[in-house]
Amino acid sequence: MTPSTPQPSEPAAAQARERAVRASLSADEFKSVFRGHPGGVAVITADSSAGPVALTATSVASVSVDPPLLVFSLSEDSSAAPAILAASTVVVHLLDAHDLPLAQLAATSGADRFADRASWSRLVTGEPVYHGVRAWVRCIVVERMHAGASTIVAAHAVQANVNRPVSDGDPGDALVYHNRTWHRLDDRSRLA
Amino acid sequence: MTPSTPQPSEPAAAQARERAVRASLSADEFKSVFRGHPGGVAVITADSSAGPVALTATSVASVSVDPPLLVFSLSEDSSAAPAILAASTVVVHLLDAHDLPLAQLAATSGADRFADRASWSRLVTGEPVYHGVRAWVRCIVVERMHAGASTIVAAHAVQANVNRPVSDGDPGDALVYHNRTWHRLDDRSRLA
Repeated sequence: MTPSTPQPSEPAAAQARERAVRASLSADEFKSVFRGHPGGVAVITADSSAGPVALTATSVASVSVDPPLLVFSLSEDSSAAPAILAASTVVVHLLDAHDLPLAQLAATSGADRFADRASWSRLVTGEPVYHGVRAWVRCIVVERMHAGASTIVAAHAVQANVNRPVSDGDPGDALVYHNRTWHRLDDRSRLA
Repeated sequence: MTPSTPQPSEPAAAQARERAVRASLSADEFKSVFRGHPGGVAVITADSSAGPVALTATSVASVSVDPPLLVFSLSEDSSAAPAILAASTVVVHLLDAHDLPLAQLAATSGADRFADRASWSRLVTGEPVYHGVRAWVRCIVVERMHAGASTIVAAHAVQANVNRPVSDGDPGDALVYHNRTWHRLDDRSRLA
């Protein structure tokens, strides 16, 4: 026999391992872990048979550049989620601090996100797009995956508009949602 | 006939729509859109037959609290990705600004993430865990979805440790990666 990594064969170690495998965090424990995890802010829109819909999301991430793909998650709790899940195309608005009013509007339960007719229009393809945001990208939904009370959507970017480009290293007034509060990045927040 | 929304039935509008549907952003266009989108910072570890692996990710998001689920994406370009994709359990370390050296280490191509034997240990279940990070959560992988050059992983949180809890609204020295630079949130970065 050759020396090998010690195996946790004793009953106590086996029991500890079993407990660890069976356990699940409570909702409160899980929230307390993620309370300290910040996220960028986006507003996702889609057209539906009942009209345009919009919601604020902090789960948008770029996952591939060739092909250009992003993902986001939709919670069952959001009233706009069913319409966005049913859509074959969406517009993902990537916001900065100048767009805070839109982020707040689309995060407010029951608010009419389209009451101000001057704030948005429709692309030729029908999706609602808000004017003046930092950037938006029109996407074709390519995959959906269920995950508990949410659905993860992967989408292929086909059209984009950047109103406020940022150059390398520029903090660009980036908007961050963290611990139920909004933050702006600037030169003072930069590390190293 | 009742009045209805004007239909883009003219050839020009149909052609514009067709172009929009067929187009795809180039990698450079897509990068320029996401350059302005910030993200929280995590280090994901797993055990593998070839030893422990670790990588830095800015795609971690909480997607459901009951059951407690998170998602992250893994790029084919990362050397640690195959081992993490093959793992049935992972540890997701959710970092703050005090953890910047670890974020940089696990983001450096070719660096030995486990050379400092005092910086990490193994859970009873085998996964490597770094000491002193803001928080970590051990997860069982529950779903995987391919998306271009990446894979999206959904994982169920079963065990957590919070070394630096944050209370409501506390900026908590949160760490943000934005436009190839690291930022720290504090009271000065807070909006409104």
